Amino acid sequence: MRAEIISIGTELLLGDVVNYNAAFLGEELARLGIDVYFISCVGDNPGRLEDTLRQARARADLILTTGGLGPTSDDITREVIARTFNCPLERRGEVETMIREFFASRNRSMPEENLRQAFFPRGAVPLYNNEGTAPGFMLEEEGLLVFALPGVPPEMKNMFKKSVYPRLLSLERREGIIFSRTLRIFGPGESEVENRLSRIIASQTNPTIAPLAGKGEVRVRITCKEKDEKKAQEKIEEMVRAVKGIIGEYIYGEDDDTLERVTGNLLEKNGLSLALAESCTGGLVGSRITDVPGSSKYFLGGIVAYSNKMKIESLGVPPETIEKEGAVSEATALAMARGAKTRVGSDLGLAITGVAGPEGGTPEKPVGTVCLGLISDQREIAMTCLLGSQREQNKWRAGNAALDLIRRYILDLI
Amino acid sequence: MRAEIISIGTELLLGDVVNYNAAFLGEELARLGIDVYFISCVGDNPGRLEDTLRQARARADLILTTGGLGPTSDDITREVIARTFNCPLERRGEVETMIREFFASRNRSMPEENLRQAFFPRGAVPLYNNEGTAPGFMLEEEGLLVFALPGVPPEMKNMFKKSVYPRLLSLERREGIIFSRTLRIFGPGESEVENRLSRIIASQTNPTIAPLAGKGEVRVRITCKEKDEKKAQEKIEEMVRAVKGIIGEYIYGEDDDTLERVTGNLLEKNGLSLALAESCTGGLVGSRITDVPGSSKYFLGGIVAYSNKMKIESLGVPPETIEKEGAVSEATALAMARGAKTRVGSDLGLAITGVAGPEGGTPEKPVGTVCLGLISDQREIAMTCLLGSQREQNKWRAGNAALDLIRRYILDLI
Repeated sequence: MRAEIISIGTELLLGDVVNYNAAFLGEELARLGIDVYFISCVGDNPGRLEDTLRQARARADLILTTGGLGPTSDDITREVIARTFNCPLERRGEVETMIREFFASRNRSMPEENLRQAFFPRGAVPLYNNEGTAPGFMLEEEGLLVFALPGVPPEMKNMFKKSVYPRLLSLERREGIIFSRTLRIFGPGESEVENRLSRIIASQTNPTIAPLAGKGEVRVRITCKEKDEKKAQEKIEEMVRAVKGIIGEYIYGEDDDTLERVTGNLLEKNGLSLALAESCTGGLVGSRITDVPGSSKYFLGGIVAYSNKMKIESLGVPPETIEKEGAVSEATALAMARGAKTRVGSDLGLAITGVAGPEGGTPEKPVGTVCLGLISDQREIAMTCLLGSQREQNKWRAGNAALDLIRRYILDLI
Repeated sequence: MRAEIISIGTELLLGDVVNYNAAFLGEELARLGIDVYFISCVGDNPGRLEDTLRQARARADLILTTGGLGPTSDDITREVIARTFNCPLERRGEVETMIREFFASRNRSMPEENLRQAFFPRGAVPLYNNEGTAPGFMLEEEGLLVFALPGVPPEMKNMFKKSVYPRLLSLERREGIIFSRTLRIFGPGESEVENRLSRIIASQTNPTIAPLAGKGEVRVRITCKEKDEKKAQEKIEEMVRAVKGIIGEYIYGEDDDTLERVTGNLLEKNGLSLALAESCTGGLVGSRITDVPGSSKYFLGGIVAYSNKMKIESLGVPPETIEKEGAVSEATALAMARGAKTRVGSDLGLAITGVAGPEGGTPEKPVGTVCLGLISDQREIAMTCLLGSQREQNKWRAGNAALDLIRRYILDLI
């Protein structure tokens, strides 16, 4: 199956928007074993969009478009697909009702333009959108499947997962498809992972294995092409065991796992509650933990003590600790963790204090220095990391290190 | 001048790499007043790359390629451009010397494959690369200019700025270049902004004006093509005044401004300190505020009170308020804000409590209900927003609403 992705919107050509949508779809299609041959970006221009669609129609079996489904006059995808595929637009009453209800349920008045979104090429199957008003659609003709998806990323992803993925999966089953699993690794860098797995990488055939650098972590992707899912999963499982034998303690999860979810699950399973004391991360770790639905079962809350005064007053850090050891020190981190644990009344207290940058570095404690403290009734653990020079990246990585510290503590890996 | 960008590399089609290069080039070309009509991504496949190049050659005056200039066998850009434009590859002694020197100066031995990078299509002008070995090149034929740039972003950007930009600037100056400004708007949605600006939009010529949906906000982009920068800025300024006359109170900033930076600047300028009480956002607002370097001047810290127990004990919310009004209520939000202000000792206290979802909604308080409270010595303001169904998006939007509430409070807009 040969696929093309067409991303529609002048904002993409102007560089106002980075084309994350195409990367998401490329990755999803690769997992399904569908080859993407071209990604084209075209502006809100009917003639050029029609040219692009005609070309894709001539050479692909599957076309995915994103964007141009909104209610305004520069949202041209519906009209141009209708023209290109000779399926004139028709109003769909059930979609109109749905759009009206969407606005009514939010007590908002519906601008008349939104009714444009109730028109679809003749024969198209509307695809619904939990996240907003823009409905997408699927159009089928001999040997070709077209999906028109919205351009707003969460809406697009939701629609892909709900409506596009199941359909493609059922088509691809016939041929033998690609199964893959991704191991998520925190700790060693990409080249260290590659070195340690070099023997396995050198002898790979099916499954194949590839390390990829991620956002402050490394992913190892294992890919296997088989007709039979069970056989593929067995082969993948064997490879996973081999990788775990070498770098098992750094593997925190698989596929869509996140450190916050994995660590959250461990807290929940072990009946442990957590309180945070954050300085340089400013609340980021709490925010990441609460990105996980149900996190209230183990996360009680925390104190963001950005100023030293708050470290002293709200967390009970002894002023002399800050004076002698510095606000960024393992001693202060432990005192902050202890304060969070005691004042919130949790099983674990975790603290992060560091120099996020770009200012505030010293020769002894350069930008990127982050101290972590973890306190339970049984133990206290402190550690210092030296991260990079970028403020937001440092915050993210400090969060990774903090979440991984809890994980390793619970799993007795530290 | 009609430009096309061709991004080369199978990793782009697989979604392993996001196409930031194309966004960078799109933005730079837009600034130069050069219209990009298409961005195409194609894999490391000679036939498909040749098709894409032939098509671009037929319809564009300017082609920029990125990627495929490395030393390995799947780096095919040199060969395929040579074939497509009938300019066979030739070895360039001066480039070979440069590559050898690059390795020698770093005390590294040069792999033989790197000599592939000394070959260029006949007539091409090599472009040098401070950041790595991959040299790019420029090829000119009647009415068409082709630049082949490396795929590694810092190398590509460096080469663009050093070699491509000056050349394009000298060409484009003759016609006039594009200046633009973006207004950032929080509050009304995209179609409401479009409706309210409809008269201006209908009569636009130069400058042009276009609303774009962003992440929980709307941007209005004003673009002006002129030979003279001063004249362009005057025309843009006039358009900005017209837009401000209609939706001024919702415009929080321009260009790269963020709500956290704008609100932070207002706090700093007015000598106001802030403390937060976050429930459903779990620390996100504190994290966003501390993304801004120097935020310690106005942000003292906060309390993430995820559990009701913490709302009561750490923020002093009366248990009966939670019982009678609910944890998600304006009364609880105000009590939380008061608790944060008093306990941290700040000028302003801001609280956010809501149902982020996907669970926890009720008929009266569905998922997406968020209550905000803001307390100063002079005033107390509470408000309720009804957001969407997506947890992470709700957290982000609640943060926008909270930051904007502070902004409007300081500016006396509420």
